[in-house]
Amino acid sequence: TAADAEAGKAKAAVCAACHGKNGIAQIPGYPNLAGQNEQYLVSALKAYKNKQRSGGQSAVMQGQATGLSDEDIANLAAYYSSLPADGGK
Amino acid sequence: TAADAEAGKAKAAVCAACHGKNGIAQIPGYPNLAGQNEQYLVSALKAYKNKQRSGGQSAVMQGQATGLSDEDIANLAAYYSSLPADGGK
Repeated sequence: TAADAEAGKAKAAVCAACHGKNGIAQIPGYPNLAGQNEQYLVSALKAYKNKQRSGGQSAVMQGQATGLSDEDIANLAAYYSSLPADGGK
Repeated sequence: TAADAEAGKAKAAVCAACHGKNGIAQIPGYPNLAGQNEQYLVSALKAYKNKQRSGGQSAVMQGQATGLSDEDIANLAAYYSSLPADGGK
């Protein structure tokens, strides 16, 4: 099934705490997600889920990604990649 | 010493092949770097250098980051974070 950005938006509520409501991180050291490459976001989320990323704040993302299905990951990537990279300013 | 975005720009010539001259990746699966959070870029580059990231295309970045000093990393992060997130369109 094709990725569903609207479903991703619903799933992204918890992500917003660190990555910002508009995908622009409000906390130093956390990446902006708005307008990021969709395939890269899928790859990164899977790497966190598979515990292939350590260092930095990766433990936070390992925990968050554990509960995401492949469909959730595809939807979240579709959502964040659809947001304007400048945060909509 | 403070990070030097101009030195980062000079060092970034090789990065542009995948991440784009303006920090917007031209290859699916590679992340945009333009306007990304500076501290996150430092953290990510150090994680690649320390081989703390695997999966996806991480082997490419492990190789690239191996030769970067902490100063290079700081300068590259300063440079890419200074670029407009929308690629300057």
